[in-house]
Amino acid sequence: MTTEHLAEVIFRSSDPQDQRVGDIVSVVSSVPKMGGVACVVLGVPQHIGVERNHGRPGAARGPMEIRRSLYKLSASSMLDAILSGAMQLFDVGDIETTGKTLEQIHDELYDIVVDVISSGGIPIVLGGGHDIAWPTMHALITLRRQFGVVNIDAHADVRPLHDNVRAHSGSAFRQLLTIKNSGLVDKGLIEFGLQSVSVSAAHLKYVADNGGQVLMLDEIRDRGVFPSFRDAVDSIISSQMYVSLDMDAFASAYSPGVSAPSADGFTPAEIGQCLRHVGRQKNLAAFDVVEVNPDFDIDGRTSKLAGVMIMQLLSGVAERTKLHH
Amino acid sequence: MTTEHLAEVIFRSSDPQDQRVGDIVSVVSSVPKMGGVACVVLGVPQHIGVERNHGRPGAARGPMEIRRSLYKLSASSMLDAILSGAMQLFDVGDIETTGKTLEQIHDELYDIVVDVISSGGIPIVLGGGHDIAWPTMHALITLRRQFGVVNIDAHADVRPLHDNVRAHSGSAFRQLLTIKNSGLVDKGLIEFGLQSVSVSAAHLKYVADNGGQVLMLDEIRDRGVFPSFRDAVDSIISSQMYVSLDMDAFASAYSPGVSAPSADGFTPAEIGQCLRHVGRQKNLAAFDVVEVNPDFDIDGRTSKLAGVMIMQLLSGVAERTKLHH
Amino acid sequence: MTTEHLAEVIFRSSDPQDQRVGDIVSVVSSVPKMGGVACVVLGVPQHIGVERNHGRPGAARGPMEIRRSLYKLSASSMLDAILSGAMQLFDVGDIETTGKTLEQIHDELYDIVVDVISSGGIPIVLGGGHDIAWPTMHALITLRRQFGVVNIDAHADVRPLHDNVRAHSGSAFRQLLTIKNSGLVDKGLIEFGLQSVSVSAAHLKYVADNGGQVLMLDEIRDRGVFPSFRDAVDSIISSQMYVSLDMDAFASAYSPGVSAPSADGFTPAEIGQCLRHVGRQKNLAAFDVVEVNPDFDIDGRTSKLAGVMIMQLLSGVAERTKLHH
Repeated sequence: MTTEHLAEVIFRSSDPQDQRVGDIVSVVSSVPKMGGVACVVLGVPQHIGVERNHGRPGAARGPMEIRRSLYKLSASSMLDAILSGAMQLFDVGDIETTGKTLEQIHDELYDIVVDVISSGGIPIVLGGGHDIAWPTMHALITLRRQFGVVNIDAHADVRPLHDNVRAHSGSAFRQLLTIKNSGLVDKGLIEFGLQSVSVSAAHLKYVADNGGQVLMLDEIRDRGVFPSFRDAVDSIISSQMYVSLDMDAFASAYSPGVSAPSADGFTPAEIGQCLRHVGRQKNLAAFDVVEVNPDFDIDGRTSKLAGVMIMQLLSGVAERTKLHH
Repeated sequence: MTTEHLAEVIFRSSDPQDQRVGDIVSVVSSVPKMGGVACVVLGVPQHIGVERNHGRPGAARGPMEIRRSLYKLSASSMLDAILSGAMQLFDVGDIETTGKTLEQIHDELYDIVVDVISSGGIPIVLGGGHDIAWPTMHALITLRRQFGVVNIDAHADVRPLHDNVRAHSGSAFRQLLTIKNSGLVDKGLIEFGLQSVSVSAAHLKYVADNGGQVLMLDEIRDRGVFPSFRDAVDSIISSQMYVSLDMDAFASAYSPGVSAPSADGFTPAEIGQCLRHVGRQKNLAAFDVVEVNPDFDIDGRTSKLAGVMIMQLLSGVAERTKLHH
Repeated sequence: MTTEHLAEVIFRSSDPQDQRVGDIVSVVSSVPKMGGVACVVLGVPQHIGVERNHGRPGAARGPMEIRRSLYKLSASSMLDAILSGAMQLFDVGDIETTGKTLEQIHDELYDIVVDVISSGGIPIVLGGGHDIAWPTMHALITLRRQFGVVNIDAHADVRPLHDNVRAHSGSAFRQLLTIKNSGLVDKGLIEFGLQSVSVSAAHLKYVADNGGQVLMLDEIRDRGVFPSFRDAVDSIISSQMYVSLDMDAFASAYSPGVSAPSADGFTPAEIGQCLRHVGRQKNLAAFDVVEVNPDFDIDGRTSKLAGVMIMQLLSGVAERTKLHH
């Protein structure tokens, strides 16, 4: 892990009346002892898996641009929780990716996620391509946590590995379902927001045949986004929960800077409410935000949206600590 | 008609587990015999009518860019219908427009639409300017079909012809209402989504005085977009239905690449639900998508939205064939 | 005030069947005698206050670009009210800002707002930075109007003056609340749409401690945007009402050209309905639209949205005159 380059993007307010996230985050060079509810930001600046999946490169710059926006945001919604010590926010920096294979990067990500969770923290992983979902799930499996997954995404990401061994940005949940069938995992995968124009019939069938659940965008809208999401979260309440947010789940009007933009999709209002709910859940084990591609962004719109969505989740975490006090 | 240039934009997946629209469309050089429910894509690559209406040129490239996006989309929602033979999708290419007047282009469009409908197909016409709505309506009149029209649009398009003879991108529904008063047509025109900032009081009055119905965007929102649309569709259930989608009916956040962008307007969620409903109706006679202007588009956002909207309609068609089996 | 440069942006239709706002606005070089309900557009082309608040410059071109879009819009929704004489629309031009300090500009704005209101008009002030809200409120105080304020904004704008004397684009409502505590004003400030990521905890507390009311975006959505807004308007029904619209209250998908874009925020549909309601209220004393920054706009999207929002308000005013006849 490396944190040296973070100084550039950690906004510090000079005004005690105007505390930003950059004022309250603790940059640490290794996973610290943690108390209360601790969230740990870490970045995976690569797009190797995107390129393998024939996507357009650029997501490697995602973690830095998300931080640039996140740390400038007001900390108001979690300031009390932070000041009371009930909640902590760390940034352990980025995995050093230069010159490494995707497999090496995934191994390091796996190690740090195991470390964060073992130490009592909730990893908030900044992608990078969606391939990084697998090392997180692998870590949960190793730690023998029973967990369910909610993947907020336009795509199913259940494509086969290349040559049966090489993961890519469209394969993470295939990796999960393959393992799942081995009996190692018994909790579900919920694919939330898939679009029929973005997923093949065979892949939809694959998810269903392997015990996953698909909630298509159109169905979700018919029932209401938040009620559908709340039910998804409720269905995994007895185990731990991992939530993955692919930024292409949003309509590209809101999220133009992604590897594969979606003409239709969720609004920030819809997903913000869902993530606040996620943050409130005691069983939240891990979260990530993936596929921000700053090369195609417009005036930082997508990075800002990623930052705002992380803050919705952190606000929920802060509320939870308040309820416990 | 010419199809030679289509190869560039017909995406073919190399993966049988990942069938795209480009894998199931049949490119044909003339209108074929058709069975089941057949949809026939055809393009009109021109913006002469837009220029006559003092709009900015660019829509000539619309048909190719819409195809580029449409044929890359997953075919999942209509794959069963296609494989069972209950539904067919053809592309008969573009009208050759080089060196022709708008009148000559309209005559050719009229001919091909007559041909498609006579052969049992549903034309899906890709504009080009909105002037292309008139040849389609003219074809329905010639074929002695009783029909009603739903025009999803920010504008009324009831401006007078230039010099009483030259049509343009803002005159198609004036042409209809003029004929309608002659007694040749007895079903209605419903203008859906007009914005008071985009239509003159005189033109609104013209529609009403000539038996058309106007549903303003603000009224539609007060009642709900889908309920309003469903009632519009129900009102013409006893005749055939032609639906025209002007992409400037969407807010320009979603649809920046159009001849005349609208700061406010529909969302993809709203119109997608309506078009799925259209596809399900047995009386659907013709559909078009007009005014995509790739010169002002952002990363293909508007072309993609046009493709996704066509797929919503095709999904509805596929559902209909399923209900019939 | 200067009006010489307006000719460039006042669109005049050559078609009596197609009356635009530019056809019905009266450009006047000083505040005229007014009858019926008169709305008076005036511009403040500067961004000195934005720069003082460390924002990006560009808003100085806002007034001209808003007019360019506004005057091209159809006048249909207020044509009857204008033709009957029940409603008037004036444009008194822009404050000459070249070579002046922000304080001098504010003094001139104060003078013209006093003049417009004293003459029976409703000022519609085009910013420029949000600092221009204070001279308008100062004018209302001087005129001894009891008034309440609804500020539609992502930010609270209650930052302290620089060196206790220099106002800026983030201080206008601090100036109000300071005066308010002096007993000069007894009606409320309602901050509508604030985002927790955009306002510090200390500033939220400041508003509450000084008798203001904060309605956060997330709360507003939970209750519904229009019901929340209507209640806010109702709460100040016994006094006059000043409404300020900061264009960064919209999600930047709709409103990219602003000084400080918001990844999340209101939609045009939501605020359009609110402003129509504002226009209908007899106690409307003043309105402004601020923070349009054309340097960051995309194909005029934000200027057009500002124009459309002004028309929503003017439509409400026109409805009101109709009810009175």
